[in-house]
Amino acid sequence: MSEPSAVKDALRNQRIETPSWGYGNSGTRFKVFAQPGVPRDPYEKLADAAQVHAATGVAPKVSLHIPWDRVEDYGKLAAHAGSLGLELGAINANVFQDDDYKLGSVTNPDPRVRRKAVDHLLDCVDIMDATGSHDLKLWFSDGTNYPGQDDVAARQDRLAEALGEVYARLGDDQRILLEYKLFEPAFYTMDVPDWGTAFAHCLRLGPKAQVVVDTGHHAPGTNIEFIVAFLLREGKLGGFDFNSRFYADDDLMAGAADPFQLFRIMHEVVRNGGLDERTGVAFMLDQCHNIEAKIPAVIRSVMNVQEATAKALLVDADALGAAQRGGDVLAANAVLMDAFSTDVRPLLAEVREEMGLRPDPVAAYRATGWAEKTAAERVGGEQAGWGA
Amino acid sequence: MSEPSAVKDALRNQRIETPSWGYGNSGTRFKVFAQPGVPRDPYEKLADAAQVHAATGVAPKVSLHIPWDRVEDYGKLAAHAGSLGLELGAINANVFQDDDYKLGSVTNPDPRVRRKAVDHLLDCVDIMDATGSHDLKLWFSDGTNYPGQDDVAARQDRLAEALGEVYARLGDDQRILLEYKLFEPAFYTMDVPDWGTAFAHCLRLGPKAQVVVDTGHHAPGTNIEFIVAFLLREGKLGGFDFNSRFYADDDLMAGAADPFQLFRIMHEVVRNGGLDERTGVAFMLDQCHNIEAKIPAVIRSVMNVQEATAKALLVDADALGAAQRGGDVLAANAVLMDAFSTDVRPLLAEVREEMGLRPDPVAAYRATGWAEKTAAERVGGEQAGWGA
Amino acid sequence: MSEPSAVKDALRNQRIETPSWGYGNSGTRFKVFAQPGVPRDPYEKLADAAQVHAATGVAPKVSLHIPWDRVEDYGKLAAHAGSLGLELGAINANVFQDDDYKLGSVTNPDPRVRRKAVDHLLDCVDIMDATGSHDLKLWFSDGTNYPGQDDVAARQDRLAEALGEVYARLGDDQRILLEYKLFEPAFYTMDVPDWGTAFAHCLRLGPKAQVVVDTGHHAPGTNIEFIVAFLLREGKLGGFDFNSRFYADDDLMAGAADPFQLFRIMHEVVRNGGLDERTGVAFMLDQCHNIEAKIPAVIRSVMNVQEATAKALLVDADALGAAQRGGDVLAANAVLMDAFSTDVRPLLAEVREEMGLRPDPVAAYRATGWAEKTAAERVGGEQAGWGA
Amino acid sequence: MSEPSAVKDALRNQRIETPSWGYGNSGTRFKVFAQPGVPRDPYEKLADAAQVHAATGVAPKVSLHIPWDRVEDYGKLAAHAGSLGLELGAINANVFQDDDYKLGSVTNPDPRVRRKAVDHLLDCVDIMDATGSHDLKLWFSDGTNYPGQDDVAARQDRLAEALGEVYARLGDDQRILLEYKLFEPAFYTMDVPDWGTAFAHCLRLGPKAQVVVDTGHHAPGTNIEFIVAFLLREGKLGGFDFNSRFYADDDLMAGAADPFQLFRIMHEVVRNGGLDERTGVAFMLDQCHNIEAKIPAVIRSVMNVQEATAKALLVDADALGAAQRGGDVLAANAVLMDAFSTDVRPLLAEVREEMGLRPDPVAAYRATGWAEKTAAERVGGEQAGWGA
Repeated sequence: MSEPSAVKDALRNQRIETPSWGYGNSGTRFKVFAQPGVPRDPYEKLADAAQVHAATGVAPKVSLHIPWDRVEDYGKLAAHAGSLGLELGAINANVFQDDDYKLGSVTNPDPRVRRKAVDHLLDCVDIMDATGSHDLKLWFSDGTNYPGQDDVAARQDRLAEALGEVYARLGDDQRILLEYKLFEPAFYTMDVPDWGTAFAHCLRLGPKAQVVVDTGHHAPGTNIEFIVAFLLREGKLGGFDFNSRFYADDDLMAGAADPFQLFRIMHEVVRNGGLDERTGVAFMLDQCHNIEAKIPAVIRSVMNVQEATAKALLVDADALGAAQRGGDVLAANAVLMDAFSTDVRPLLAEVREEMGLRPDPVAAYRATGWAEKTAAERVGGEQAGWGA
Repeated sequence: MSEPSAVKDALRNQRIETPSWGYGNSGTRFKVFAQPGVPRDPYEKLADAAQVHAATGVAPKVSLHIPWDRVEDYGKLAAHAGSLGLELGAINANVFQDDDYKLGSVTNPDPRVRRKAVDHLLDCVDIMDATGSHDLKLWFSDGTNYPGQDDVAARQDRLAEALGEVYARLGDDQRILLEYKLFEPAFYTMDVPDWGTAFAHCLRLGPKAQVVVDTGHHAPGTNIEFIVAFLLREGKLGGFDFNSRFYADDDLMAGAADPFQLFRIMHEVVRNGGLDERTGVAFMLDQCHNIEAKIPAVIRSVMNVQEATAKALLVDADALGAAQRGGDVLAANAVLMDAFSTDVRPLLAEVREEMGLRPDPVAAYRATGWAEKTAAERVGGEQAGWGA
Repeated sequence: MSEPSAVKDALRNQRIETPSWGYGNSGTRFKVFAQPGVPRDPYEKLADAAQVHAATGVAPKVSLHIPWDRVEDYGKLAAHAGSLGLELGAINANVFQDDDYKLGSVTNPDPRVRRKAVDHLLDCVDIMDATGSHDLKLWFSDGTNYPGQDDVAARQDRLAEALGEVYARLGDDQRILLEYKLFEPAFYTMDVPDWGTAFAHCLRLGPKAQVVVDTGHHAPGTNIEFIVAFLLREGKLGGFDFNSRFYADDDLMAGAADPFQLFRIMHEVVRNGGLDERTGVAFMLDQCHNIEAKIPAVIRSVMNVQEATAKALLVDADALGAAQRGGDVLAANAVLMDAFSTDVRPLLAEVREEMGLRPDPVAAYRATGWAEKTAAERVGGEQAGWGA
Repeated sequence: MSEPSAVKDALRNQRIETPSWGYGNSGTRFKVFAQPGVPRDPYEKLADAAQVHAATGVAPKVSLHIPWDRVEDYGKLAAHAGSLGLELGAINANVFQDDDYKLGSVTNPDPRVRRKAVDHLLDCVDIMDATGSHDLKLWFSDGTNYPGQDDVAARQDRLAEALGEVYARLGDDQRILLEYKLFEPAFYTMDVPDWGTAFAHCLRLGPKAQVVVDTGHHAPGTNIEFIVAFLLREGKLGGFDFNSRFYADDDLMAGAADPFQLFRIMHEVVRNGGLDERTGVAFMLDQCHNIEAKIPAVIRSVMNVQEATAKALLVDADALGAAQRGGDVLAANAVLMDAFSTDVRPLLAEVREEMGLRPDPVAAYRATGWAEKTAAERVGGEQAGWGA
């Protein structure tokens, strides 16, 4: 257990990045349910993100998705973010919503399509130059639907080539964050299905390539915190895409489906030094809110990550180490569970008050009337959604 | 093993119903990839289905989805089907693509929405009266995304009430086919997640309610053929929605992901009398073709069901029974595997030629030039997709 | 949220039954690791169980496993239990550890073996008469390892016949608790793989047959609390076998793998009246402790069930119902999460002190020196294990 | 599609290694069912393995498990193997059946236990020197049962240290084959849970360390053939432990649960050059036969691997490549399925007859009377089982 003041410091300093697409309309393959007041452009998304930061004090960064957040002048968008007390965070490349990508983007059998996809990735680096973003987050929907559809190894060759070209283009303080996902949207095999594949590619690329762990992207039974510990040990954990799920679609609020798992993940982060800013671990949300109100859902997600972090910080490391070294299974487990069983909401309320915030971020947001205001004002135009 | 002529008779008599929505555009939550020549209305979908029947000789029935296949005059649509050598099959009610259904249809906490949903189901029975369809297929996307969101038991009460009202409206030769699905689109719990739930409701409703087994709707590790055998034993297997999947989305061609599983399912069907028309087991496809050409994909799916059926018919029942009764594990398994290892394509080619068809349905379809013709002609208008 | 005093009453009155086999040696298929001081006979197991009850005050009942707990005189064993402040609980029939059962017990293709198995079940009812036990818990390891090995439907016939014979033998205040399990030890299919199968058999048997939910017996992704709510609504939930697991073997302490799931289960129990003694829901543990000390592991498991129950009792039912009826997804979820986030350990400590117990049951047990004493005294003889 | 003669050559040259433990008694955690005629020592196991080779002609190698196959003089055992027309294959180290290993072997928190475990591994290399074996197969049951029980990263450090010491001891033509397994026997986390972990360690160790893919060791939904292709591309596929399973325990005959998956795996092997002896890919079985006769079960497993290989060799590579490059999803899949649908049993019968063998290996074995002979002769002594 860290000193109380150290715990508070760590909670105050943790930054949780929110995704621009979490503020827009979204859904499942069956239906997108529209909500009133949803932003119509990246500027309005930033305005919503500013509400989350105002309420929580720890969410100043906003991830963009290109082309969903395409604007004419990224410098202007960054400046607008600054004027709201925000910064632009990771640039998420999107090479999955164009008819050309039906059989893949960077791994497509057609060289013309691959060229187009890589050019988009290079454009994203240009955007990073303009926005001052450090992270290029790459998730590829590439894969195949049927056995035999394409050559698995050849697709790896194409992937490696594309990544190499993009890596070479990175600036000194820029990096690739490579994401993996087991099973979707390609039905038979994804081209980056698991952390091992992402890790192997990052290793070849070099120090500016790291793996992103999206908590919703694993096979049933996978021990995610093991992967987190392993990647931290290898210096290859670039960050998290937090969200949760019970089975497939991974758009529930972080910590909603399995708060104990989120705690175990944060325990490995704390234990292996991942809260130290110098490790560069980015704590990002990657989720959409299909049936619940979006801004309070993002706020709740930020709070859930904070609560898991607080509990992880409260683990009595000395007692844990002693029990572990002594082989006392029950005692070691009990040390961890003691921290998990603790109600950390009062501690976080205190931290917030010391930061000049209201203790309950959801109530703080409700009190602003922002939801009513935007529902009234944001009429006409097209509300942002996937692909909007 | 049945007599050769009995095997051929069974293959000739099996009917495989194809879904109107399999001919339209479809995709994942990430992207719908459009294809040229896709139908623009139910009449064009029937024209495509007629191609499948022309090539295979066993697919005269077409399932409709309401409202996707809404027309002014269902009698006229049925007559049109008849003129193409087709009949209209199951009516699939759709209560999941209206903003009102965000929190459920027949299980919605709001009585107004429940009324609307039940009215739609009753409308579907009216349509059945007009089309001469016997089966009302009910799949509810209803469920909840978050623990606590709604009361699990209260939703069952509402479901039971809605089903009871619809059941009472059924005509003498009409039935409810109740489908179940584990995990989608509701993230936390579905209101009809498994066969046990569907079975319990059907039992209460009475003899005109039966369970549909969609092969893509189970948890990993579920033994689907056990469910098939169990429901047949209870007289409660209404039919199949065939398709396949490796993990989540279940839109691959039937038999594409696990042909051995499809064979095992058909083995239980054959063993337990389910090929006998009098049991009323409906062999339906429920799949969409996101990246492959649609008509040949449906043809291939029909062929896959036929091949699995043929292999199941070739199981030497006497030898199997003897080995089973004798407790000879390897011998019993070998009898089954012998049938599975058999290449039944020549047998099916023979059956087709005896029916006056070409032996290779895919080649037969290619030879018609239908794909080129429809790609050229079906321009303008809106191509059918989910919700089109 | 119930009144504080009602919450305490409920916690004081809940009974958690512990399993005799949890006190013996156990392991995986790879290795059983022996521990010092482990009981050598049913009498010593009861002595250990009495320690758990002494420390927690809520665990007076002990389940037996026959033949593991075979004794000459069951009346004497019951009297011994009484002298320790305990009662004998459910009788667990064991028809899986005899070479005769290689291909099944009550579903074996060989009628001689089936007769032997049913006779054992009838013997167990005799034992219940002698011990005063009300519950016959039936878990069948029966199933097949290979497709084709035996006839799935015929095995259901045999199962139904065996259950019918045993049901007819039950006394007025005796019942069958039928358990289901997806995948083990039969590799291809279990004969009672899921709740639907158990439910269907219990329905046919009559009111004295109910389903047991073992929390470790489901496919990945299964929503167990849905099953609990459904069975309570149908009056068919007989009880729980609590334990936990991350993937396969289900011998971890209840609540250890997913405390949020255990809370959600108890929420459905509370919400649907299952804490009311008159519903007859039995709260049993079914777990073994392979590498951790056994008695404190049982104590911790009891505490985990209590903590989940306490949190479920603290759910503000009025606020929850209002949010649910209003369709406020986030508010409804927040009501549930508020209860889960609460640290209920102080409340339970208070309840214990009011019962004249020490607030921390694990510390109370440690203070007795029982572990040291039994390690010193229980030497010689054969320590109890599976099959001992 | 390779030339017919090349297909036959490949089938004739493939070597499938059988495991000594597949000939002994085995079971699940619930029960080991004994069979008559089971070997009582490593010499008798070799005699059984010789029957498999006599019947199939492709199984001359036998894997040993130490200490299950401990003998005084390994040179003598190797000579005995030679006299039977066999060679000794991989040495499987076993550091999981000693009470000392309750909390792990090479990752145990206690340095004394780690030393003991590493010494055992070094002993195994000595045995390799004596037997002429080239492969040290390492599967560690190490892991933890409860969150917090031990430090995940520290265990990786210990693992790396142990592997390094063993690696340094390897001779020029010896290698480490490192196995991974997701979920058993450790309940919370395994120390080598997935291919990524094994791969990362092998990469650090150097060229004499490669990964073994056990087909039964993955999470549900994992695409095993992707891993195979990836490892072959990286030069890090050391071999296979073939077996199959439907959910957890992985002791079914290779190809029994999902023959299509086995075919897809062999397709990636063929496509990526893995049949070439120079790649060093070892085709090993790792399975036990709990309820079926052991020798014929091994024979059937060998045949299943051969059939999958034959089908993979029959894939028309030119047609496949053309369809893949052209983006014709259905055509590419059809090429693969054509090969899978082919009945290759006649081809393999022909290959066997050309090798001077009977066409049906199971019948050939039955004709020897070996089962009856050993059942009569092998009485007295202790039959081999796990730990025997």
